[in-house]
Amino acid sequence: MSSPARKPTLAVVGATGAVGTVMLGILSSREDVWGEIRLIASPRSAGRRLRVRGEEVEVVALSEQAFEGVDVAMFDVPDEVSAQWAPIAAAKGAVAVDNSGAFRMDDDVPLVVPEVNAHAARNRPRGIISNPNCTTLSMIVALGALHAEFGLTELVVASYQAASGAGQPGIDTLREQIAKVGGTTLGTQPGDVRRAVGDFGPFPAPLAMNVVPWAGSLRDGGWSSEELKVRNESRKILGLPDLRVNATCVRVPVITTHSLSVHARFENEVSVARAHEILSGAPGVVVCDNPGEGEFPTPADVVGTDPTWVGRVRRAMDDPFALELFLCGDNLRKGAALNTAQIAELIAAELTTG
Amino acid sequence: MSSPARKPTLAVVGATGAVGTVMLGILSSREDVWGEIRLIASPRSAGRRLRVRGEEVEVVALSEQAFEGVDVAMFDVPDEVSAQWAPIAAAKGAVAVDNSGAFRMDDDVPLVVPEVNAHAARNRPRGIISNPNCTTLSMIVALGALHAEFGLTELVVASYQAASGAGQPGIDTLREQIAKVGGTTLGTQPGDVRRAVGDFGPFPAPLAMNVVPWAGSLRDGGWSSEELKVRNESRKILGLPDLRVNATCVRVPVITTHSLSVHARFENEVSVARAHEILSGAPGVVVCDNPGEGEFPTPADVVGTDPTWVGRVRRAMDDPFALELFLCGDNLRKGAALNTAQIAELIAAELTTG
Repeated sequence: MSSPARKPTLAVVGATGAVGTVMLGILSSREDVWGEIRLIASPRSAGRRLRVRGEEVEVVALSEQAFEGVDVAMFDVPDEVSAQWAPIAAAKGAVAVDNSGAFRMDDDVPLVVPEVNAHAARNRPRGIISNPNCTTLSMIVALGALHAEFGLTELVVASYQAASGAGQPGIDTLREQIAKVGGTTLGTQPGDVRRAVGDFGPFPAPLAMNVVPWAGSLRDGGWSSEELKVRNESRKILGLPDLRVNATCVRVPVITTHSLSVHARFENEVSVARAHEILSGAPGVVVCDNPGEGEFPTPADVVGTDPTWVGRVRRAMDDPFALELFLCGDNLRKGAALNTAQIAELIAAELTTG
Repeated sequence: MSSPARKPTLAVVGATGAVGTVMLGILSSREDVWGEIRLIASPRSAGRRLRVRGEEVEVVALSEQAFEGVDVAMFDVPDEVSAQWAPIAAAKGAVAVDNSGAFRMDDDVPLVVPEVNAHAARNRPRGIISNPNCTTLSMIVALGALHAEFGLTELVVASYQAASGAGQPGIDTLREQIAKVGGTTLGTQPGDVRRAVGDFGPFPAPLAMNVVPWAGSLRDGGWSSEELKVRNESRKILGLPDLRVNATCVRVPVITTHSLSVHARFENEVSVARAHEILSGAPGVVVCDNPGEGEFPTPADVVGTDPTWVGRVRRAMDDPFALELFLCGDNLRKGAALNTAQIAELIAAELTTG
């Protein structure tokens, strides 16, 4: 097709949530490829006015009619809402880009990280594209770049996941707990923090002054659903169905930005120097690795930024085929809203250039 | 020798520090095998009166004379103080039990965890026994029990280390930082926490609302000294000089109790059921592993207790020879004071029963 008649229309479903809020900021700061941006939320949020691209836009209630004329519909809503409404948006002719877990492992729904497998977005028989889980997204861009050169065979992952992975209730709960323990001498007797913080919110244990080795729901073998997402989604995105992946997912008292300690084994011998070169040249990755000078990624520095930050790159001491890495990624940006926006932009480019 | 003429005399060097304080509590609550307990500290703390075994004891200044008549001298002081004074105590006839890093890797100094290698304490040609690093100690009792049955070949470790691993300054710094961020909306913009907390104390970055992938000093290959301690001390304690160990040590905003995510590979096939049996029967280990019911170890529940708590036991999904574990141990108790006291009690038993 030649030059487009019009810029495509984008719908943001779940515009008022934690990820939706970040999404509006991202849409306002990136190159503007969109015609209309329609904000959609639950009926109780309809009528609210939110700023995007410097203008106030009124939120409309989720309905079949809300998708009339929409080219791309982003969904940042719970799994069951996506499961119901993404197919409706697709049936109305939109490409649905879904950030829930509803479709990620379906064979006929691509799971896309533009820096790694943009090509997969073109094959979408149901008109739905899934956005990966935030924990997988916080590491996969960097690992994809290393895989392209070294050939990944195994991952052992330990996560340090932020409260906002559990949405706004997660953020609110951690803030309330930190306010309660701040200025106290708690944290030295069994259960003293547990008794002081009161409400655990969406978490199964106190999060302030604590770490909680559990996220999601119980699966066979004692695994959490979050740990299986890291495994299954990494395999699907990288196109490596036999990749060995074992993850332990742990929540930490950080507001936003997931961190991961990764032991990555490859088919080929690795070196720190070459890993630095690959990562430095990879789109969406920043290398921050000079620990003697205090340079390593931390959530407090990475939050609010777009890339995956990589530091602490070491070759395993007994294994010339393995690297140890520490990675940080903003779980609301690259881990959710940004990656969704990047996928939507791929579709916009496809619609306008054919 | 027959029944002892007297109970042995114990010296506690560093009685006024973070570990020393916990030590006095431990000595007051365990079976009392000691005659005199002499409290020793730097000259500026001499004259202070501290409670141990329900009595006030005056602190004496560190000097050669302070070791007169001492049978066992525990050292909870910086490396350079131990390096100077432990040999002096030994020359005066005491067995020095040292919690610093000064002697741990010396071939003629045993590195002892009573549940794992009590026998090693008998061979001490210099009269010095070393107590392992707190991070190693927080996992090694459980791993030693699994090793005895399955035969350990490889460890991949990611730590979640508490502020008190950096002593009282670490505790004070984290408390001050939490008080500053509590009640704020910080943690969403790059550097906002960094600017708000001010002093980083003994840490290289803010610790409140953050995780910091660095502990210790820089070694070859980008490793931290803390990470090499986990490797080298695990090998020495378990008597496995070729054990593959790669650790990533990360500080988290927890006051006390280290946690570790461990991928452990063995010579023999493993099962979760048998691992649970082994760990349930191991002295110094508690199994807490029913995540569907919210049962997993967290620092907030483990702090102030003696055992290593183990949960999240899973068999690796692609490898019948590997287990994934999450462990917590109070780094001031088993990770420092308690293990030192246990070693001292081994010596007391040897001195009184021959």
